[in-house]
Amino acid sequence: MPPALIAIDWGTSAARAYWLDAKGRILSSRSAPLGVQKVAPGGFPDALRVLLGEAVHEDAPMLACGMIGSRQGWIEVPYRECPTGAPAIASALAQVPGAPLWIVPGLICRDPRGVPDVMRGEETQILGATEVGEALSRTIVLPGTHSKWAVVGEAGIESFATFLTGELYGVLKDHSILGRLAARGDDAASFDRGVRRSLEADASLAHDLFSVRTLALTGELAPGAVGDYLSGLLLGAELAAGRRWLQRQRVPGDSVHLIGDTALCERYRRAFACAAIETTVGPADAAARGLWWIAREAGIAG
Amino acid sequence: MPPALIAIDWGTSAARAYWLDAKGRILSSRSAPLGVQKVAPGGFPDALRVLLGEAVHEDAPMLACGMIGSRQGWIEVPYRECPTGAPAIASALAQVPGAPLWIVPGLICRDPRGVPDVMRGEETQILGATEVGEALSRTIVLPGTHSKWAVVGEAGIESFATFLTGELYGVLKDHSILGRLAARGDDAASFDRGVRRSLEADASLAHDLFSVRTLALTGELAPGAVGDYLSGLLLGAELAAGRRWLQRQRVPGDSVHLIGDTALCERYRRAFACAAIETTVGPADAAARGLWWIAREAGIAG
Repeated sequence: MPPALIAIDWGTSAARAYWLDAKGRILSSRSAPLGVQKVAPGGFPDALRVLLGEAVHEDAPMLACGMIGSRQGWIEVPYRECPTGAPAIASALAQVPGAPLWIVPGLICRDPRGVPDVMRGEETQILGATEVGEALSRTIVLPGTHSKWAVVGEAGIESFATFLTGELYGVLKDHSILGRLAARGDDAASFDRGVRRSLEADASLAHDLFSVRTLALTGELAPGAVGDYLSGLLLGAELAAGRRWLQRQRVPGDSVHLIGDTALCERYRRAFACAAIETTVGPADAAARGLWWIAREAGIAG
Repeated sequence: MPPALIAIDWGTSAARAYWLDAKGRILSSRSAPLGVQKVAPGGFPDALRVLLGEAVHEDAPMLACGMIGSRQGWIEVPYRECPTGAPAIASALAQVPGAPLWIVPGLICRDPRGVPDVMRGEETQILGATEVGEALSRTIVLPGTHSKWAVVGEAGIESFATFLTGELYGVLKDHSILGRLAARGDDAASFDRGVRRSLEADASLAHDLFSVRTLALTGELAPGAVGDYLSGLLLGAELAAGRRWLQRQRVPGDSVHLIGDTALCERYRRAFACAAIETTVGPADAAARGLWWIAREAGIAG
């Protein structure tokens, strides 16, 4: 029997396809390192064939989210403005010419100064988490290279903010003087120390990052703890700024819902605990759930 | 006639030697890309010969400052605690065995939480600027890979703080998603825009860095302006944190004295102007002046 929908989470570095039955249940899934950054212009039809492998169903409708809809993707799908929800997003899908493949638009929002923020893919994960009622909080945090904090409400996704935390950790670890010292292990106490430092009123990331070096130099931070302390400083800085961001929007900041990679969500859960913020986590297949909801709203699921 | 002193500013990536006469005037200077990071263990005698070239004066006393006195340098000279001044620093020079070469100790200070900060080389530049009375302000800022802010007073160098600004700019430009967009040019308005953003009360570096990408994406920042905006955000963040650091120490923050590379000092001067902070600059040969002062205090200048 053909699937009711092939749901594809197609990001910057990788793509994952889910085969869903008529009730939206995941029958199987398959991933490939064929993210948008790794596919040459014109190469997306071939990349899709590789991703789907033998399990091609010529007639099955396909719905994709993520960077596949960006300027560097298969076709560029204009951003939808926040606040917005599943019905509006479903009405703005773009179809790839000549294929039963639709792409979900990303979202754009502007802060009070008019500065834009954008997401592509996370909107679908957020809908996937809220659809099943798992998001107990108004605030959803998606840790990652570019972490997203989103506020959800009756209008759907109301606003969001991006933090470069994961990318900062990566470039500092791989390319800075701090990185030569840094091995991230599982030194929870040093991680908490970094988080707590960044939560203090006089924290300053550009200054505090240097303490990674000086504490290691004076032997006040063990070699195996350096990476965890650095990670803690960065997550703490995100948390402090995210908390202020919620306050400015008058959204209670006492609990957040985390979606993403299990190990990374655990790291964030630990950081939030340092700030006495409660966390709930999941689901793991939020993108597939969100794509299923959007496909049904759009009437394209078989 | 042999020089009274060969003064050497020996840093991480390069070394510069100054030949000084009996009044401390610079007769000539010479540099080599033989910073501590580029010299293998045991290679310092050869590196010194290359640096001095033909102008060797076997008997001339030599005084060096900078990373040459670090664990990765020729010999490790223990840090001096702040507050400290030229007499105390001059009494703590370490002599390289078998050579008329002395090395200036670096400084260490601790913030109220006990977290250490360190410098090697900048203490000499600061003394060089204060000795000649050019430092009109109690606050001296030395822009660079690791910018230093120092408070000077009757006791000498009272305290200081390091900001990773230059290194953050480098790794973000060369290795992050922002870097692909970033060409630093001379778009002063975009630089100021970045500085001003980071000076705002709700600034958050990890979040604001993402605006480099989104503003470029929406065409609200011209491709040629991206690097200047990024540079402005980072300098503004340093300035905001440095200003708070001065306040906590009850040091007036209405003027600072800049020492360093001319173009970089001009960039900082511009950033300080955005915050209505007055700046004075110089001298260019602060390290040589500081080394001369320390050598005379120590009685090693010929």
